[in-house]
Amino acid sequence: MSTPTTPTVEHDVVHVYDTTLRDGAQQEGMNLTVADKLAIAPMLDELGVTFIEGGWPGAIPKDTEFFARATKDLDLTNAELAAFGSTRKPGTTAHRDTQVRALLDSEAPTITLVAKSDIRHVERALRTTAEENLAMIADTVSYLVGEGRRVVLDAEHFFDGYRFDPGYAMRAVTAAFEAGAEVVALCDTNGGMLPEWVHEIVTEVRAGTDPSRHILGMHAHNDSGCAVANSMAAVSAGARHVQGTVNGYGERTGNADLLAVVANLDLKLGLRTLAEGGLEEVTRIAHAISEVTNIAPFARQPYIGASAFAHKAGLHASAIRIDPDLYQHIDPRKVGNDMRMLVSDMAGRASIELKGRELGFDLTGQSDLLGRVTTRVKDAEANGYTYDAADASFELLLREEITGERPAYFRTESWRAIVDHSAGPDGVMRDVAEATVKLHAGNQRVVSTGEGNGPVNALDHALRQALARAYPQIEDIELIDYKVRLLDSAHGTDAITRVLIELTDGQHSWSTVGVGANLLEASWEALVDGLVYGLLHADVAPLG
Amino acid sequence: MSTPTTPTVEHDVVHVYDTTLRDGAQQEGMNLTVADKLAIAPMLDELGVTFIEGGWPGAIPKDTEFFARATKDLDLTNAELAAFGSTRKPGTTAHRDTQVRALLDSEAPTITLVAKSDIRHVERALRTTAEENLAMIADTVSYLVGEGRRVVLDAEHFFDGYRFDPGYAMRAVTAAFEAGAEVVALCDTNGGMLPEWVHEIVTEVRAGTDPSRHILGMHAHNDSGCAVANSMAAVSAGARHVQGTVNGYGERTGNADLLAVVANLDLKLGLRTLAEGGLEEVTRIAHAISEVTNIAPFARQPYIGASAFAHKAGLHASAIRIDPDLYQHIDPRKVGNDMRMLVSDMAGRASIELKGRELGFDLTGQSDLLGRVTTRVKDAEANGYTYDAADASFELLLREEITGERPAYFRTESWRAIVDHSAGPDGVMRDVAEATVKLHAGNQRVVSTGEGNGPVNALDHALRQALARAYPQIEDIELIDYKVRLLDSAHGTDAITRVLIELTDGQHSWSTVGVGANLLEASWEALVDGLVYGLLHADVAPLG
Repeated sequence: MSTPTTPTVEHDVVHVYDTTLRDGAQQEGMNLTVADKLAIAPMLDELGVTFIEGGWPGAIPKDTEFFARATKDLDLTNAELAAFGSTRKPGTTAHRDTQVRALLDSEAPTITLVAKSDIRHVERALRTTAEENLAMIADTVSYLVGEGRRVVLDAEHFFDGYRFDPGYAMRAVTAAFEAGAEVVALCDTNGGMLPEWVHEIVTEVRAGTDPSRHILGMHAHNDSGCAVANSMAAVSAGARHVQGTVNGYGERTGNADLLAVVANLDLKLGLRTLAEGGLEEVTRIAHAISEVTNIAPFARQPYIGASAFAHKAGLHASAIRIDPDLYQHIDPRKVGNDMRMLVSDMAGRASIELKGRELGFDLTGQSDLLGRVTTRVKDAEANGYTYDAADASFELLLREEITGERPAYFRTESWRAIVDHSAGPDGVMRDVAEATVKLHAGNQRVVSTGEGNGPVNALDHALRQALARAYPQIEDIELIDYKVRLLDSAHGTDAITRVLIELTDGQHSWSTVGVGANLLEASWEALVDGLVYGLLHADVAPLG
Repeated sequence: MSTPTTPTVEHDVVHVYDTTLRDGAQQEGMNLTVADKLAIAPMLDELGVTFIEGGWPGAIPKDTEFFARATKDLDLTNAELAAFGSTRKPGTTAHRDTQVRALLDSEAPTITLVAKSDIRHVERALRTTAEENLAMIADTVSYLVGEGRRVVLDAEHFFDGYRFDPGYAMRAVTAAFEAGAEVVALCDTNGGMLPEWVHEIVTEVRAGTDPSRHILGMHAHNDSGCAVANSMAAVSAGARHVQGTVNGYGERTGNADLLAVVANLDLKLGLRTLAEGGLEEVTRIAHAISEVTNIAPFARQPYIGASAFAHKAGLHASAIRIDPDLYQHIDPRKVGNDMRMLVSDMAGRASIELKGRELGFDLTGQSDLLGRVTTRVKDAEANGYTYDAADASFELLLREEITGERPAYFRTESWRAIVDHSAGPDGVMRDVAEATVKLHAGNQRVVSTGEGNGPVNALDHALRQALARAYPQIEDIELIDYKVRLLDSAHGTDAITRVLIELTDGQHSWSTVGVGANLLEASWEALVDGLVYGLLHADVAPLG
């Protein structure tokens, strides 16, 4: 356990305080196990955050267990574990309060205490007096500091409280610092602040503290859509500790997206935040964490989203090729992300050329070919295809135009899918889906029947089974995502169906698109493209 | 077509300029059809935005078609259509430029011209001279104003340009205003600005314009996670026109989330934005638009997200009941959203009571019934159903709980659907879809087979044909819309399928929902509910 040091405030260093495991876990639908938390904590450490808030030991049994295992098993290089808890109850002392005791027992070197700083919450929710609340802060902070812990005070509802009664809110901050707190984090608990308000209030609070010894922090929620900006405003007014969560997880609209805050502070204001090398890892680690939380990544997320540096507009494609820096706010490699060109009906030759290069085909100067591909893409998109989310289908189209024929591994004779909804022998109604595929592969005619929970699933099973003997590599390819869209739906069930699927070989994933008069026709096309692409990239030679 | 009026700048009014249909459509994976755009535009009008930017007529064929149909068919109450395009090419005149001509031909009363204001883009991307670019702005604006159009100039890459060469960026703004532009929207095209930078620059630009005549606007992208805050910063510095998209759709990280900006301006700064009554509709309409775009709503979206006012059990649960205002930044009803206690069904009952009243059932004081319905809805929603967009299914559920049985007109024995993909007598591969339904209606067992372009279409045909003799009213009922969504798509084709359908009797339309392991099972449920609802409202007595 570290012993507390006299805090020194370095003007260009900002604490990165991650609360993914505590406040982030309040998100609707998120339910982290102890094992999940033990998997995420080392990733946060690798990222190089300053503090990892692990939960509330004593109040939540699985958080007690997390600290018991984390303090023993985790070998953290950059970050320090923080246990979250509350100031003592009214009318007792800190050393007699079991909840405070549990915080010490967690053995976390840093303890973060939530405390009231809005007089209305003191009176109406805590139901104690203004003075007793200040005594609770002073007593709990000084007790924990005396026990050798670093203490962060989270001043809950601080901004709302300050706007209502600035004098009282300020007294709560002063009580904490005077008792030895290293940091007082000002919390916009309800998330309704705007950056100008935050800047003004943090400036005033800072004037009432000793900037050479006292560190102010910011804890923002995104209810007004300004959590990142509010965090920036606080730093600009002198705060040097920012709290937030990876991927902006959290209750309601979420906490401040910590990685966007950090990237802004580092790349735009030149402040020091994550440990050396951490910034280049943010994209990879944010996605890895979303695998553990099992919450699908948000493609439009600033800096780290899959779409964050994806360009679609035809308007700019030709210029992007010449001068990428004129079209992106930062170099995506600085946050471990990539620029991508999307192919769409707004695209021109320039974006097709760029896309080709991204896929490994140099099309420079091949004006005829570029013209043909552009026309095909536009025609296909007019018929319902979309390539901006189906790179693999685009690559097959491009190869076909380059070589004159589309890569193929088999010839389809026919297929059929049936769904039957009827009573079983027990009288209970059930659905049975079955598909039969007839094709020629590896010099043989193969007939294969598959079952599934629906006709597409049954077709997928039948197709793989039919190809498995000729192409055993197909066993490694798995279907992981599947999206359906009906186009021109003004015509009801007469609409065109578009299917986008994603497949993986365990290491890379790729997407294909199929379009047809019905779901099965569209799915078949996407499935076939997906398997062809997978075999091609597994170095299996296509039919000559 | 309106004639241009001398712009008057009202200090407390901010233009709400929606570019969902143009810049929003640049989002990766979004591909709006003309029908989609024609469905979304009236929703935006109902919301009460000031301008609806519909696309780029002349450059994108489906946008040309959109304007041709929109100017003829749409009856807009609050909003004015804007066509987006570019200033004329270098070295010609505006009236000879075919692209400019197409903007006039669109008959949109407002024309928004994108123009360069960053000297680097003028030289490196446009490859013309500083002076010619200014001439292009002046010439194109004055030509369009002379032709009776209101003109907005989008000064592309303005902020990056201003930071590099403020003098040139300012000359572009001045050229536009002097030529008669009503608004110059300053664009953070690359999305990398921070609110303090925006505030400083807009303040400087405003000092160089005549605030009594010239309206400055803001066009923000979210690459630094600050698009909402940057829009607020611009307004705080004097801008009175904000551009953005519903749900923050757009290229890369998206455009400014227009509805969050509007809610902040209205509820936190007291400015006038949407037409009277529009703010209370934002949650409903934002979700309805996401049904058309078929992009899953983001639960954490500020103001309108499903989780935006959802409080998880814990620290605050009991206090929230007593004093909700202490725990939410605004009253969610102001934006048509609801507070939800994730541990309590209180909010659920209230909204079910309200919904019942909307459908003509007075449930006041029927606590047991409300409890049962709330539980059923929650269970169903946990299993993938959604009643927000399926009033008819909800009404059937409600009737079932009130009367003890679900209205029914027939008893299904079984059904089966087949899709066969094989060569016809001419050797050409084709798909044939066929469905057989066996049911009991009007005291008879009926077996009916239908064909269609896909299995759902075939099922629909077989079902109607089977019922037509017993219920001739069914001939008037038509299926007009059909949407599919796969839930929990991490499991590939094992995902649950949800189908939403819309039917009409020529005068009214209604929607139902079905959920199943596959598309057909889900479609069958929605089709049956839809026909039952239609017969019920055609005053056909259900089976007793």
